[in-house]
Amino acid sequence: MIEPNMATLITLLFTDARVDGTTLGAIWRRVIDRTFNCVSVDTDTSTSDTTVCLASGAAGAVDSAAFEQALYEVMLSLTKQIARDGEGAEKLIEVCVDSARDAEQAKTVAKAIVNSPLVKTAVHGADPNWGRVAMAVGKCSQYDDIDQERVVIRFGDQEVYPVAVDEAGLARLSSYMKGADVRIHVSLNTGSTACTVWGCDLTDGYVRINADYTT
Amino acid sequence: MIEPNMATLITLLFTDARVDGTTLGAIWRRVIDRTFNCVSVDTDTSTSDTTVCLASGAAGAVDSAAFEQALYEVMLSLTKQIARDGEGAEKLIEVCVDSARDAEQAKTVAKAIVNSPLVKTAVHGADPNWGRVAMAVGKCSQYDDIDQERVVIRFGDQEVYPVAVDEAGLARLSSYMKGADVRIHVSLNTGSTACTVWGCDLTDGYVRINADYTT
Repeated sequence: MIEPNMATLITLLFTDARVDGTTLGAIWRRVIDRTFNCVSVDTDTSTSDTTVCLASGAAGAVDSAAFEQALYEVMLSLTKQIARDGEGAEKLIEVCVDSARDAEQAKTVAKAIVNSPLVKTAVHGADPNWGRVAMAVGKCSQYDDIDQERVVIRFGDQEVYPVAVDEAGLARLSSYMKGADVRIHVSLNTGSTACTVWGCDLTDGYVRINADYTT
Repeated sequence: MIEPNMATLITLLFTDARVDGTTLGAIWRRVIDRTFNCVSVDTDTSTSDTTVCLASGAAGAVDSAAFEQALYEVMLSLTKQIARDGEGAEKLIEVCVDSARDAEQAKTVAKAIVNSPLVKTAVHGADPNWGRVAMAVGKCSQYDDIDQERVVIRFGDQEVYPVAVDEAGLARLSSYMKGADVRIHVSLNTGSTACTVWGCDLTDGYVRINADYTT
């Protein structure tokens, strides 16, 4: 995932909460699905990424919902740190796809955007290039219910498609795109499900780190 | 933006052969499936790729098989030129996957290899990194019939996995990887179907061309 030459990520999370194994397993899978399984630096997966959560019980019983939320917040923070620490990365990209038909459609489209080399280089160049975002949605051609006339694209809070950006908006957008965090928000308007994924820009640094050594 | 599934690419091919529309349409689709639909510079597709083949009939009747082969050779040449001309490309990568279960498996695995940023940067760095090729095969996790113990990986004619390369082989391989054309050959040993796809290395040039302008 991240480390050059087959990233191998091993994550160990310890808690003193008292949670039985079955419950903890179910919570952990839900949390991982929304965090670590939503990060991609370069689409390339490793054979040995592992996450483990261990609960000692020393702190006694906990509220299950509050515990799951706390785990989620810790793992979300780690997920963003992974993306921000990607090889050569200079910017964190967060892509939220909402109003999707189902979770699978939301995640597939979000991953297509965050993994697109053209979107990643546009973000690197601080260019609010909504055409490339639309392209990435369009290449998910397996979904015939996505109608380009109904898709809405935003960078940060600024809508860029279909409503064109005015001069003042463009000035704000230009400043936003130069920041270290760029959020791309796409509403598909095919349903009511959302997914957020994280990645990073594609830079000369990525190429150098991964090309300039031999095995 | 080059992965014709049909970058904005318009190809017009003219022939004086006399071929009826139905036959020409069928031949053209078969040829495009093995050529233009097998090239990818960066996975990013365009809305408007088009190929058209027009036959005037002025040269009279032709042998259909010979005509199809001739069309294939022209389109294969153009396909390799597209890959070699990719943004910032310095090397052509040809990936052949054979002994696959079916055409869909062969093409999916071949595309995973040719599109892997880690494989593309390894080729850019002239590194015969078979581990990254194995990683790209492994990320096609939808195929549970692919057994890593039975996969064979070659760069050019040199087997690199599972049989390890000796000193003499490594010297030849090092020289081969510095060439302008790199061929990666993977045998899956799940069946008897093959597919060849084309792409290019990932370079600083790609990043600069796609990041350093605004829209």
